[in-house]
Amino acid sequence: MRIEALCTGDELLTGVTTDTNSTWFQQRLLEHGEQIARTTVVGDVREEILEALRTLSGRADAVLVSGGLGPTADDLTAEVAAQAAGVPLVIHEGALAALRERFAKRGLAITENNMKQVMVPAGSEVVLNPAGSAPMFILRLGKAVLFFVPGVPREYRALVETAVLPRIDALRAERGETGFRALRLLKTVFLPESHLDARVRPLLALHPRVTFGFRTHFPENHLKLMAEGRSPEEAREVLEAADAAARPLLGDHLFGVDDETMAGVVGRQLLSRRETLALAESCTGGRIGDMLTDVPGASAYFLGSAVAYANDLKERWVSVAHTTLVENGAVSQMVAGEMARGARRSAESTWALSVTGIAGPDGGTPEKPVGTVFIGLDGPDGTEVHAHRFHGDREWVRSASAYAALDWLRLRTRGSAS
Amino acid sequence: MRIEALCTGDELLTGVTTDTNSTWFQQRLLEHGEQIARTTVVGDVREEILEALRTLSGRADAVLVSGGLGPTADDLTAEVAAQAAGVPLVIHEGALAALRERFAKRGLAITENNMKQVMVPAGSEVVLNPAGSAPMFILRLGKAVLFFVPGVPREYRALVETAVLPRIDALRAERGETGFRALRLLKTVFLPESHLDARVRPLLALHPRVTFGFRTHFPENHLKLMAEGRSPEEAREVLEAADAAARPLLGDHLFGVDDETMAGVVGRQLLSRRETLALAESCTGGRIGDMLTDVPGASAYFLGSAVAYANDLKERWVSVAHTTLVENGAVSQMVAGEMARGARRSAESTWALSVTGIAGPDGGTPEKPVGTVFIGLDGPDGTEVHAHRFHGDREWVRSASAYAALDWLRLRTRGSAS
Repeated sequence: MRIEALCTGDELLTGVTTDTNSTWFQQRLLEHGEQIARTTVVGDVREEILEALRTLSGRADAVLVSGGLGPTADDLTAEVAAQAAGVPLVIHEGALAALRERFAKRGLAITENNMKQVMVPAGSEVVLNPAGSAPMFILRLGKAVLFFVPGVPREYRALVETAVLPRIDALRAERGETGFRALRLLKTVFLPESHLDARVRPLLALHPRVTFGFRTHFPENHLKLMAEGRSPEEAREVLEAADAAARPLLGDHLFGVDDETMAGVVGRQLLSRRETLALAESCTGGRIGDMLTDVPGASAYFLGSAVAYANDLKERWVSVAHTTLVENGAVSQMVAGEMARGARRSAESTWALSVTGIAGPDGGTPEKPVGTVFIGLDGPDGTEVHAHRFHGDREWVRSASAYAALDWLRLRTRGSAS
Repeated sequence: MRIEALCTGDELLTGVTTDTNSTWFQQRLLEHGEQIARTTVVGDVREEILEALRTLSGRADAVLVSGGLGPTADDLTAEVAAQAAGVPLVIHEGALAALRERFAKRGLAITENNMKQVMVPAGSEVVLNPAGSAPMFILRLGKAVLFFVPGVPREYRALVETAVLPRIDALRAERGETGFRALRLLKTVFLPESHLDARVRPLLALHPRVTFGFRTHFPENHLKLMAEGRSPEEAREVLEAADAAARPLLGDHLFGVDDETMAGVVGRQLLSRRETLALAESCTGGRIGDMLTDVPGASAYFLGSAVAYANDLKERWVSVAHTTLVENGAVSQMVAGEMARGARRSAESTWALSVTGIAGPDGGTPEKPVGTVFIGLDGPDGTEVHAHRFHGDREWVRSASAYAALDWLRLRTRGSAS
């Protein structure tokens, strides 16, 4: 089955938007046993969109068309699709009713340009959009079936997930294309891609029905295992064999699988041990608290974070002694230890993590250059502090610090509470 | 001049790599007065690359082709380019010498597959690669000039910057196309795209040499102004006229321009007023502190955030009265007010913002559904609390809350301190 993607929008040709939708779609499609053959990106230009629709319809079996379904003058996709199909645009009553309800709930007036969004090519199949105003519509052109979805990532994903992928599954079934795939993402932290690749390289020849893919998302590196089989069970067996072979090679760098996040894994461990956590953050500025509270239900184990950015607040909020600050400086092993103890005592939590460091670009000295970070961990067995030297810009140092803190606690809280 | 981009590589079709090269190239190209008309992405498949080269050469004046110049068996671009041009591949002596030197410096042996990288279509113009092994080469096919560069971002940027953009400038000069562009991004918050579009619509006809583009990044919406002129000065004049016309239409929703961020604007204002800020966060979990500390130099105005996630810590860290919590609940106007006052008093800051709300998915009630958020602002003139009702998932509610808090302070701290 030949599947292509057509993305429309000037923002994709003027450096305003990077096409992350396609990356996500390609990953999901692989999980459904298919790979796209080509991506085409055109601007908000009628002739370009029309030419692309006609050309792609002439050679593909299915095309995912995204973008150009918004309310502005630049949004031309529905109109050009109708032109390509030789039909008029018509108002879809269901979409219009949904739009009215959506806007009423937010107390917003419907503008004339919103009306444009509920017009679809006559005769197309329509799927209402759970996350936005413009519905998805489906057209047949030539030998191809074309799925038209919005380009806004949240809406794109919702519709592709619920309405496009199942239809692609159905098309594959019709065509008797029933190879099955099983996928798993093994997530590692602080393992550079080249090292991950070198560790896993020996497995390639031993697992011929598995594709090994790599994706970097500093400081995480993900190993994607894609196994093929003639049945779902066989694909699963092939996957498990590769998984069992890969895990020992990743060691403690492996922190999670598939949708798990670092904060989610730490939270799950704390929850199962019935333990709680407080933080004292300085250079991370609240990021670790943000990461932890991204997870629903975090209040079961996360009590709070004292983001003591100014030195006065390190004293006032987490009881760092004035003399300790004066003698060692805010970025020091002593201060990190006192911050952790202060947070733990004040919050009455099982554990407390602290982070104090120099994120840059300013603030570095020869003794303590940018990237110098001290992380403290206070718990039932006492206080420890780890010293780090990170290399990178401000964002890199803050990200690495947040992960290093959480990863330390992850390794410390594996298994049952003692 | 019609310019297109052709990207080759399976990693761009299997969800492994997102095409960030194109975003960068498009921005640089706009600054040189041109915009690409289309991007095509194909895999490491001979027939696909050949078809794309032929089709694009048939309609474009210039094509930037990237990827497929590496040493592996998947790298086919040079071979297919030679086929398209009807010439053999030949070793480029200059590239070979450079490769030998590059590897000798690193103490590496040249492997047979590296030799492949210094073979180019006979008759092509070659530009040595300052950042990698494979040289860039230039071919004419049909009416088009094709620039072949590696896909590795560092090498792509180096060659495009030093060898492709100057050649595109020369082509434009040959064709008498000496237009210039000036760009500006006007950033708004809490203005739905359809409303932004409706407000700006009347300007389109009044500013014919300006292209108006829109980009959504909830809760921000960006208006991109792209002005054309026969000289850089004229392009700038045309831009300023459109800018002056657009700003009044955006009102207080306009918070920043070009690279400015919400947190950066608030920080700049506080700095110029010599004022400081502390936070008391609950459902935002540290996000507002994280946003503020993303900005280098934030310590000049940001003192800290008490992320009092557990109710005990609302009492202990920001002095919310126990009775207030019991009588009103943590998510209430009274608690938001006390949190803000408590943070301001404790940090001795000019201002304090507080956020307490129900981010979801759990925790909602009929009286206080998911999305109910109270934001407090305590300052020299007293305490105020705003009640919000946000509609969306956990991430949406937390993001909207963080922006609403910062935006309130932005509007309050415009101009000089009283």
